[in-house]
Amino acid sequence: MFLKAKFLQLEADRPIAILNKEDAAELGVKPIDRVELTFGKKKIDAIVNIAARIVQEGEIGLYMEIQETFDIKPNEKMRVRPVSTPESLVYIKKKLAGKTLKPAEIYKIVEDTVKHKLSEIELTAFVTALYNRGMTMTETASLSDAMTKTGRSLKLRTKEIYDKHSIGGCPGDKTSILVVPIVAAAGLTIPKTSSRAITSPAGTADRFECIAPVALSLDEIRTVVNKTNACLVWGGAVDLAPADDIYIKIEYPLSIDPFLLPSVMSKKKAVNAKYVVIDVPTGRETKIQTKEEFETLAKEFIQLGKKLNIKVNCISTYANQPIGHCVGPTLEAKEALSTLVNGKGPADLVDKATILAGTLLEFSGKKNGQKLAHEILRSKKAYKKMQEIIEAQGGNPDIKPKDLYPGKKVAEFKSRNSGKILWMSNKAVDIISREAGTPKDKGAGIFFKKKIGDTVKKGETLFELYAEKTNKFNRAIELAHKLDVVKIGKGMGMMLEKLPEKREEHEYFILER
Amino acid sequence: MFLKAKFLQLEADRPIAILNKEDAAELGVKPIDRVELTFGKKKIDAIVNIAARIVQEGEIGLYMEIQETFDIKPNEKMRVRPVSTPESLVYIKKKLAGKTLKPAEIYKIVEDTVKHKLSEIELTAFVTALYNRGMTMTETASLSDAMTKTGRSLKLRTKEIYDKHSIGGCPGDKTSILVVPIVAAAGLTIPKTSSRAITSPAGTADRFECIAPVALSLDEIRTVVNKTNACLVWGGAVDLAPADDIYIKIEYPLSIDPFLLPSVMSKKKAVNAKYVVIDVPTGRETKIQTKEEFETLAKEFIQLGKKLNIKVNCISTYANQPIGHCVGPTLEAKEALSTLVNGKGPADLVDKATILAGTLLEFSGKKNGQKLAHEILRSKKAYKKMQEIIEAQGGNPDIKPKDLYPGKKVAEFKSRNSGKILWMSNKAVDIISREAGTPKDKGAGIFFKKKIGDTVKKGETLFELYAEKTNKFNRAIELAHKLDVVKIGKGMGMMLEKLPEKREEHEYFILER
Repeated sequence: MFLKAKFLQLEADRPIAILNKEDAAELGVKPIDRVELTFGKKKIDAIVNIAARIVQEGEIGLYMEIQETFDIKPNEKMRVRPVSTPESLVYIKKKLAGKTLKPAEIYKIVEDTVKHKLSEIELTAFVTALYNRGMTMTETASLSDAMTKTGRSLKLRTKEIYDKHSIGGCPGDKTSILVVPIVAAAGLTIPKTSSRAITSPAGTADRFECIAPVALSLDEIRTVVNKTNACLVWGGAVDLAPADDIYIKIEYPLSIDPFLLPSVMSKKKAVNAKYVVIDVPTGRETKIQTKEEFETLAKEFIQLGKKLNIKVNCISTYANQPIGHCVGPTLEAKEALSTLVNGKGPADLVDKATILAGTLLEFSGKKNGQKLAHEILRSKKAYKKMQEIIEAQGGNPDIKPKDLYPGKKVAEFKSRNSGKILWMSNKAVDIISREAGTPKDKGAGIFFKKKIGDTVKKGETLFELYAEKTNKFNRAIELAHKLDVVKIGKGMGMMLEKLPEKREEHEYFILER
Repeated sequence: MFLKAKFLQLEADRPIAILNKEDAAELGVKPIDRVELTFGKKKIDAIVNIAARIVQEGEIGLYMEIQETFDIKPNEKMRVRPVSTPESLVYIKKKLAGKTLKPAEIYKIVEDTVKHKLSEIELTAFVTALYNRGMTMTETASLSDAMTKTGRSLKLRTKEIYDKHSIGGCPGDKTSILVVPIVAAAGLTIPKTSSRAITSPAGTADRFECIAPVALSLDEIRTVVNKTNACLVWGGAVDLAPADDIYIKIEYPLSIDPFLLPSVMSKKKAVNAKYVVIDVPTGRETKIQTKEEFETLAKEFIQLGKKLNIKVNCISTYANQPIGHCVGPTLEAKEALSTLVNGKGPADLVDKATILAGTLLEFSGKKNGQKLAHEILRSKKAYKKMQEIIEAQGGNPDIKPKDLYPGKKVAEFKSRNSGKILWMSNKAVDIISREAGTPKDKGAGIFFKKKIGDTVKKGETLFELYAEKTNKFNRAIELAHKLDVVKIGKGMGMMLEKLPEKREEHEYFILER
């Protein structure tokens, strides 16, 4: 069948062609079926959408991506014929039916994912099938491998590559900004790629962007790492395991994360990491809430590492309150930089960073890793290394904490009674910070004056809320009054929760990379 | 935030608004999140899509449905604010996590489905969750009930309403066209709604449309039934259990059908049926292939019927070859009409129709149902009733089989050897018929001169292939030569299948209603 091209002002992640319902019936195709489009010497397979009004009989509606693929003008005729759906769909249906997939089948699905050959319905079926049916360790390894191989990879001179990852869920976690320069200052190579926030107030890429550029090309990253042993860049700019970003778009609205293991490990493999320490924040409101859950996950990470030739250590870290005092990109960057400049900082932040860095140092054969890490921080060797990294990434190496300003709108939240801080709610911190504007408004966030165990007097400031924009500021203030961010008690208060709750529920799901 | 309306030439099943990525970040929304749009006094919640190019910062791209909902002009500003996702999404996630849903939760999901509040990703998660996690009988009943209540229903004077349904899968099954007039001629009320073909060569609505109009309104249907005790109409035109059509759009590309039971029973409930006979074609290439599968399914239908106050009988029918001699809308209509006009026809067709009709007659207290049904057919009372139905639906009651012409392009397929017909492939019949143009080209199809058990001589015609259009005709001929439609042997050939197969695989999935 030959149909006249109608140009639609529309963009999509995948090639979509819109047929009139009469032509679709004539071709015998239904929505999500595929048609092959031919014009001149070019051919592509497009996903069928069907419309009754915007595309007339005899026309084919083309999204911008297809208009640009073909050198075609509006009203020129192109050949349209039904073709079978991608082979990978057979394997998705197989997984949906509860069967185990072979490595080549998984590869095909991931390949067709990154080539944008699959529709949203098909991708959702794959993601939910993995979630509902689970994966064998061999499937998980195949998936990690496929996600790495369908993207680019960072090739460095050395094979001894170290890396660090946090599965997320604890606000204020600026640990990477300390770990990277400590490890690099000890002579190890740590090409750290980070993500931007998905559901949290800030990702490491959002934080470090306040200090230096993070959207580097793969070539630029190689140059930076060859010069300084390290980098702190945004992984999303360089197509390392790009399938993950496509799956996240399905996982996010469904609040499920079956890709956690392959997502983390495929990105580590893409930078050819040989030794990886994985931080698993463990606490009441994080992904991993118990010792048992941690141990199960850690075992899986370690096993998966063996299959991928990566030596993995997992560390369960205390996550019942934010790390350090600050939450929000600028505030966190300021706190991390200040800790490097001074060689000291909040005890929890320093302890966590030196434990993680120390583990990597011990991988390299050094003794007393944490002590050594601490010494590198204290002696400001880590700060010097950070200056090198900032300069290599195109930033100003002399940037100081005072150069980092949070939002100009500030509200102080004071204690209504005296006592001890018994607990803090990460969930409330996340929700309020996002209402205040993070991660988009880098200056938004929260500064905590008190944390768990601190004594507080009535009228003393508990925390300061920062924002850049009036409307967000006001909404965040309102929310901060409603939610229990901080719980204060005389002595030890024992009640954690009471059901049924009367407060309104706020959606909360942690999906971080 | 206020954004300028940009009119997009786009239609969708659901309200979608496209934001520029900067505005989306500012609002803190991601794809599939919801925003509330306000203009004048009207408000609606729209599903968020995000674009980088077609919608500029400060603009909001509106699909045609939204443009029409608001009395807004291009470039006028509307208020846009993030709102939470529909409550039903919480229940979808609950089912996805393997939990059992309460009736009210299922109702909310189905209600939001028909109100077009759910995105494709969310609907897919629901459909695949039902498929992967299964349903309790209480859930299935709640789902059926919700699907009925979220649509319209047919209210008739009598409460004694009979109905017949086939779960499909056997080509050439024009049984309903005989069952309905037989049962109605006996004085019972049978308001038969049928579907068009989804994956098969013809649905009953496609077949009967060759004889009389089938796209009647609910009022027209009521008039026809009140006048004649019966009707034979297309259910898709009257919003009976409309959620089903939305779920089918997800089931089809994934080749899964978790909605079979609620789909069938919700439609029966929507016409207030009290007695239902369900035909379960059972054979090598149908949905239900074994006695055990039939018995399991039948038990579920019967139990579900009890919960819905519908008395159900299920009948497993032989389905290893097409019913009668013809496949394709016109050819089948002709064969059914001819059987009514003459009071007799192909033995398998007549046997099947009288068994099903007889079961309904026995529900009403009559004895020897099949014999009675046969007598009504033979005496042409069924034909007279059919003439009444045709006239009431707006057709010509004097239409004769000779008035029904199949496609003008005909190819005869002759036997290459002598012997007996050992088996036929329904799958091959379906695929070839669809390639020839069915169901869109009503005159396309196949006429079988020989069926299982018949003796055939070398050179005798096995079947004739009909089409309306040259290109489809040629492709269908090519396919008919490749596929094994009919298997001929001397005496009894024992081989059913040999693996690995060398022939190319054709996709085959039966999704009929």
